[in-house]
Amino acid sequence: MTEERIESQARSVKAASRILYDCPTAKKNRLLRAVISRLRGGASAVLAANREDVENARRGGLSPVLLDRLTLSEHGIQQVIRGVRDVIGLPDPVGRILGRVKRPNGLRVEKMSVPLGALGIIYEARPNVTIDASVLCLKSGNTVLLRGGSEALRTNRILADLVRKALGDVDLPPGSVEFIDSTDRESVGMMLKQSTYLDVIIPRGSRQLIDYIRANSSVPVIAHGEGNCHVFVDSSADLREAEEIVYNAKVQRPSVCNAAEKLLVHEKIAAKFLPRIAQRLRDAGVELRCDHGARGFIPDAANASEADWSEEYLDLIIAIKTVRSLREAIDHINHYGSHHSDAIVTGSKANGESFLRSVDSAAVYVNASTRFTDGYEFGLGAEIGISTQKLHARGPMGLAELTSSKFIVHGTGQTRG
Amino acid sequence: MTEERIESQARSVKAASRILYDCPTAKKNRLLRAVISRLRGGASAVLAANREDVENARRGGLSPVLLDRLTLSEHGIQQVIRGVRDVIGLPDPVGRILGRVKRPNGLRVEKMSVPLGALGIIYEARPNVTIDASVLCLKSGNTVLLRGGSEALRTNRILADLVRKALGDVDLPPGSVEFIDSTDRESVGMMLKQSTYLDVIIPRGSRQLIDYIRANSSVPVIAHGEGNCHVFVDSSADLREAEEIVYNAKVQRPSVCNAAEKLLVHEKIAAKFLPRIAQRLRDAGVELRCDHGARGFIPDAANASEADWSEEYLDLIIAIKTVRSLREAIDHINHYGSHHSDAIVTGSKANGESFLRSVDSAAVYVNASTRFTDGYEFGLGAEIGISTQKLHARGPMGLAELTSSKFIVHGTGQTRG
Repeated sequence: MTEERIESQARSVKAASRILYDCPTAKKNRLLRAVISRLRGGASAVLAANREDVENARRGGLSPVLLDRLTLSEHGIQQVIRGVRDVIGLPDPVGRILGRVKRPNGLRVEKMSVPLGALGIIYEARPNVTIDASVLCLKSGNTVLLRGGSEALRTNRILADLVRKALGDVDLPPGSVEFIDSTDRESVGMMLKQSTYLDVIIPRGSRQLIDYIRANSSVPVIAHGEGNCHVFVDSSADLREAEEIVYNAKVQRPSVCNAAEKLLVHEKIAAKFLPRIAQRLRDAGVELRCDHGARGFIPDAANASEADWSEEYLDLIIAIKTVRSLREAIDHINHYGSHHSDAIVTGSKANGESFLRSVDSAAVYVNASTRFTDGYEFGLGAEIGISTQKLHARGPMGLAELTSSKFIVHGTGQTRG
Repeated sequence: MTEERIESQARSVKAASRILYDCPTAKKNRLLRAVISRLRGGASAVLAANREDVENARRGGLSPVLLDRLTLSEHGIQQVIRGVRDVIGLPDPVGRILGRVKRPNGLRVEKMSVPLGALGIIYEARPNVTIDASVLCLKSGNTVLLRGGSEALRTNRILADLVRKALGDVDLPPGSVEFIDSTDRESVGMMLKQSTYLDVIIPRGSRQLIDYIRANSSVPVIAHGEGNCHVFVDSSADLREAEEIVYNAKVQRPSVCNAAEKLLVHEKIAAKFLPRIAQRLRDAGVELRCDHGARGFIPDAANASEADWSEEYLDLIIAIKTVRSLREAIDHINHYGSHHSDAIVTGSKANGESFLRSVDSAAVYVNASTRFTDGYEFGLGAEIGISTQKLHARGPMGLAELTSSKFIVHGTGQTRG
């Protein structure tokens, strides 16, 4: 994969972005219907390619969790198609008036949503992202250069090709979606240099990947990084409710970024709460790593190290710490957390509001599981991912977060004095 | 200026940002009143330092335009104070509910504005920015590491010190505002490495500076770059109105980023319009650089080179080109422009709307001068600068653009199934 090839693909999505920029809603929806037709027609080819990818990955020793993510079944393709149909039903995020003001000099100043332009998306194992991300980009008037995970290369190649054919079907430039057909690690580095053509890069991945991209990209980045999420059980918490929330946040799907990795417990209720939650978590196979305070009530637990407080396990492991106050819990979360999703379980309205106000995370919860941080669960209707940065978009990103804006000004000959 | 010193300043603004994050509005306004008191008390010291800076710059051969920007008069300090008073009167941009939804499972999901955190601002000659930027950052709950232009070092040093004293006056951490007391070019490079502490860097400056920062910053950037702004005079334009708009956009203040640098004229009215606007601009001392078509009507004008179409002159120069259609004008602007501010003068409502929709710039105008691109003129009540990027904020940035958001979720024990 030469740099020239990637530059030419970036140039292609940039050129196509000029066409998509003011493409009417009806035409964009016609395109998405063509994507559905192409997916139906190409399903068997997609499944065959995916079987090869899975077989290859299995021989390469990929873990069962990742093999599961990689696998696309007939049912999986139906789900992808349903997802595309959902996006057809969503309102066009482009051309909305976000604010307006009439100035004393008669100028009418409006702020209107517009596409971001040409995007680069870097993602990992799951091949359905190739369709999901393309469709969300196209519906929001953007074009996209895709760089998927190496294990899914064959599947992704065919899926991207189906989308390009659908673009041709409705007389839109196939170059609106370009796929980097390479598992070369250097291809990521080459994408980061395409600031002449790409407006934004959206990387999903580990902290190491995100840090590398941040340090090396001349293209603006919307990072989708890790979640070191906390549940804090306050002294006034309903302990039965707290038990359900902690259990759900840790155990229901430990491999995702909104799963809880840390449990903070107010020392006043530690004696009552810790033994029962410890038992419940252990019964589900969770490894417990405790600070000195928590070990007082779970004596046979392992010691948590300093590094544990910053780590995202994505596994059946939880670190547990007792705190003396709400403030200590808030400070701990703001210091060690990854500012993704954090929850308090409390019976005190005042403490709940304090926590919501002072914890600086993309999503903060009172009396609910952190697992709800998700575009669908938050009512956005779709999700391109979960931004872990503060600029542009924070938390679950839907179609609206794939737009920028411009000021449009109607005058009657005004000049500045 | 060692790297350790800048890292320690970045750490200081980060630590202070935790305090400012949930600082009540009343306290932030008390701080701004203290800034006014300190400015009054310190005015003579500021003026004395500024006289030294100006004298020094004059000896160094700084151009009259830049000397003018550098100079701070007693009247100038009064204006700065009036600006602070205006910001006191603006609503707190933090804690606003930007959207809310009740989910079928009973979760109440709200999106709330929050401070961005610890900012880095890189700016040039005008010393009033030291106060303006500090005050806007503090009102929006942010802290800031400032790096001003070398010519204004003495003035900036004293101004930053006054703000730090005002912070102390109201028991807020003086480290909320740190000033890089160095004209060392390397200090900019050092700021760009502080991604552990800085949440955002806002650079104002030339394309070269912005490109350098984009390529080297591991901190997310909101760039304030150049303006290669266009006025397109359509075939149906009121030519008297067009003349006033072109004249105002080019001549009223040629050194600023929203001044027009290019004039596109529909070939149908070129014979009528070009000779008269050429005369008017030349009378104001404007140098004309024309393409082949425009030279047909302004025979003694210089030839425009290919480079002219991309250039920001910031001076009494304009390049002029005839076009055959609205579409040619739009394509030219999208291709060569800097996506800052562009205007059409037209009598056709349809052409006006087409232009507004298809020109991909931060501000697009129908029948008004590009010179209005400004936070005050757009009714934002304040302005930290004009973003020329698509991510996070585009066009004039006020207090709201200095915030991020978070999702706050009220539950009653919900867990995910």
